[in-house]
Amino acid sequence: MSRLLVHTTMSLNGFIAGPNDEMDWAFEHAGAIPAALIDEVVARTGAILGGRRGYEVSRRAERRETSKPFGGRWSRPIFGLTHKPPEDETDPAYHFLSSDVRDAVATASAAAQGRDVLVLGANVVDQCLRERLVDEILIHVVPVLLGAGVRLFGGLGIPTQLGALDVSASGQVANLRYRVVK
Amino acid sequence: MSRLLVHTTMSLNGFIAGPNDEMDWAFEHAGAIPAALIDEVVARTGAILGGRRGYEVSRRAERRETSKPFGGRWSRPIFGLTHKPPEDETDPAYHFLSSDVRDAVATASAAAQGRDVLVLGANVVDQCLRERLVDEILIHVVPVLLGAGVRLFGGLGIPTQLGALDVSASGQVANLRYRVVK
Repeated sequence: MSRLLVHTTMSLNGFIAGPNDEMDWAFEHAGAIPAALIDEVVARTGAILGGRRGYEVSRRAERRETSKPFGGRWSRPIFGLTHKPPEDETDPAYHFLSSDVRDAVATASAAAQGRDVLVLGANVVDQCLRERLVDEILIHVVPVLLGAGVRLFGGLGIPTQLGALDVSASGQVANLRYRVVK
Repeated sequence: MSRLLVHTTMSLNGFIAGPNDEMDWAFEHAGAIPAALIDEVVARTGAILGGRRGYEVSRRAERRETSKPFGGRWSRPIFGLTHKPPEDETDPAYHFLSSDVRDAVATASAAAQGRDVLVLGANVVDQCLRERLVDEILIHVVPVLLGAGVRLFGGLGIPTQLGALDVSASGQVANLRYRVVK
């Protein structure tokens, strides 16, 4: 069965993007993240489940790192969970869902064909955590405190117990890997 | 000259206490924090600068871990930065200041007699960071996502660049140590 993985870069104070979706602070440290960790995520991910905001960011991105998942190294189905699906998207990789999050995860899991589902986007991640759907969290903490922005794990409302699987440093980055205790 | 150190336990999503100042989630993992790290902070700290909220928590605490700094292993001056100093405190270790944060840091630094100043409390930490007064940050990230609570680094408003000095794992805890780039 597909496992649900959250994988992202985060500031020490919990932001995954600046107030206008800026991610330059994250790209500055992208080179420090161990290639083997990224390769593993690329290999195991069979589908991506994200939200509308991340979709918009990717559509207007000028850098390949944000316009395509993993900079274009990965090309499998991408599901966008949104009540406002765009009407002009022609890329066959994109599928928009307006269902509840459980059904969206089931759809993405089926499309992953035995691989895992990567969950992206603060809002969708929080929804999946609240429903106890997330299995694993891999966070690259970069050495910056953002002043404001898009907060990961910001709207949970209920606590989630984790178990630390691995903690490592690579350059200035702390790589924190957890399983979710269900 | 005294250096300003922030040292605390934090949930992966940036909380240092629950909505009612709960810290049991942190104490569960206190034993995993390397004793040498704590000993170093105890030895180098010449004064503590905190806020009113932390003071109130310590006054009503039933556990020695929260009623006294470092569980009673440390006894030097404690400064509370607050516009509402309590009128009934008789412990001579406590000094209340209603000055601006720069003056409060100067007062605490003088009292530290060549040792460092430990800054506690989300509000005071944010004030010190905004004024570029913090030199070093040592965070023990425990494997939990709190649903709500007291957020560290939550009201900065401006970004702060850090440099990673050391990252290590001890049990389920990630120990992250940074210098602040000024």
